[in-house]
Amino acid sequence: MAHDTVEKTPVTLLGLGAMGAALGRAWLAAGHPLTVWNRTPARAAAICAEGARAAESAAEAVAANTLVVVCLLDDASVEEVLAGTDLAGKDLVNLTTSTPAHARVRADWARERGARYLDGGIMAVPPMIGVPDAGGYVFYSGSRELFERHRETLGVPAGTTYVGRDAGFAALHDVALLSAMYGMFAGAAHAFALIRREDIDPTSLAPLLADWLVAMAPAVHQTADQLRSGDYTKGVVSNLAMQVAGTPTFLSTAEQQGVSPELLSPYFELMRRRLAEGSGEEDLTGVIDLLVR
Amino acid sequence: MAHDTVEKTPVTLLGLGAMGAALGRAWLAAGHPLTVWNRTPARAAAICAEGARAAESAAEAVAANTLVVVCLLDDASVEEVLAGTDLAGKDLVNLTTSTPAHARVRADWARERGARYLDGGIMAVPPMIGVPDAGGYVFYSGSRELFERHRETLGVPAGTTYVGRDAGFAALHDVALLSAMYGMFAGAAHAFALIRREDIDPTSLAPLLADWLVAMAPAVHQTADQLRSGDYTKGVVSNLAMQVAGTPTFLSTAEQQGVSPELLSPYFELMRRRLAEGSGEEDLTGVIDLLVR
Repeated sequence: MAHDTVEKTPVTLLGLGAMGAALGRAWLAAGHPLTVWNRTPARAAAICAEGARAAESAAEAVAANTLVVVCLLDDASVEEVLAGTDLAGKDLVNLTTSTPAHARVRADWARERGARYLDGGIMAVPPMIGVPDAGGYVFYSGSRELFERHRETLGVPAGTTYVGRDAGFAALHDVALLSAMYGMFAGAAHAFALIRREDIDPTSLAPLLADWLVAMAPAVHQTADQLRSGDYTKGVVSNLAMQVAGTPTFLSTAEQQGVSPELLSPYFELMRRRLAEGSGEEDLTGVIDLLVR
Repeated sequence: MAHDTVEKTPVTLLGLGAMGAALGRAWLAAGHPLTVWNRTPARAAAICAEGARAAESAAEAVAANTLVVVCLLDDASVEEVLAGTDLAGKDLVNLTTSTPAHARVRADWARERGARYLDGGIMAVPPMIGVPDAGGYVFYSGSRELFERHRETLGVPAGTTYVGRDAGFAALHDVALLSAMYGMFAGAAHAFALIRREDIDPTSLAPLLADWLVAMAPAVHQTADQLRSGDYTKGVVSNLAMQVAGTPTFLSTAEQQGVSPELLSPYFELMRRRLAEGSGEEDLTGVIDLLVR
């Protein structure tokens, strides 16, 4: 092959589930030579028709390129699939969903085998991959050298956000944001349940709900400032005592509407516990301390 | 007084707590003659120095103007304060925080006394009142005639959103949005708890968290579409089976980080229950049906 200034880094990709296949297609579309392997070979056929090369084994796929990206079912699959491969000198990027502890163990495991290791947490669903305006991105943590060397290639499927040398931090950020999202979804579920038996169109409530959540989301900045300073009364507008005093209205409304309070009451219970500790002048931030054992 | 094309509707305001006082100041600043009454007379002094007139009693305050706004502690206070007043021919706007059922009862009670009735649910904290760009607004429901007649005056302290003739709908919308907000705050609390013992600055997590919540909030539109159509598989990207399969990562991470799962597990439990009903191909929307008794 002639030297070419726009020659793209070749990528090996292990795992062609919905997310792996989306990643692979994004690299192919951007002109990166791609070697793939999947436990079920049939899944490789489609992407090979688009220009990828299928390796016969994980070992062969790993041997093909320096940059090796894995996107498998879980951490156990990563260990199993990589067990028979030679990782010495490889730049291993693990985009498999995992916990921080798994990521840290996997990082040590990879380093013992002579590989540089970068862990990733994908903040996107497959349809957002390779779509620059879709807003998806990937948290990366671990080897900063590996991240800097392959930053451009890693940035092809989705935006990149490096969050530290601790290999567990990408998974931790991923889980933190998704956990917060489930909290928001739980709140929205309660809101929709409240109007379920009323003559209110849910599609009329939705824009009000979305706008309100968007307007209130920046409250996390004040929470963060309070956590950093340790002063949970800083900038408080509606203090804990006032907010706890308001909770019966929410619980009575749920009861009137025939809605279980199970998604709402655990947070209210923590608010009450914190208030009982004499923190009525504080913001809601003290609830966080009650969650950490 | 000479006729003046910009003459402003005079307002009677009962209740000068933090919210009442903010409302009163907004009307005064916009040139509305204001008659106030508060159970504790001392609270009226400050706003009278700014141009309001203090009535000796609630009855005198109600008698002074057609438009009567009440913003008291709770529904019981509204009944008590208005008991000795003549409401015949009045346009009564109740901005006291209440449940939908209380608002409906109060609407009937007011109509029996010859008043038109409009209930309000304030989506703002006092510092947002009278600040047009602050994003605060008030849900109104009940008499549409009253709302249209006083729309301009009611729009002075904050934006107005009329949500129906059912007097309980303003409170219901208010409680629905605030309940959803508490869900989001609960999720954010869990997220901050996860990094509490790590070397991660909460003010570094906050912008990522805020952006993610803002990006995910519009998911409520799809939920609403699914609720309206009854087809919970419509447009699904990551189905319930896949999402339930992901929950152990969230719970394990919480355990690893020493964080109680109490704010996260009730929603996950409902997801599991819905999945067990054979709804694995659906979105998360079915959880809402489980909440409604």
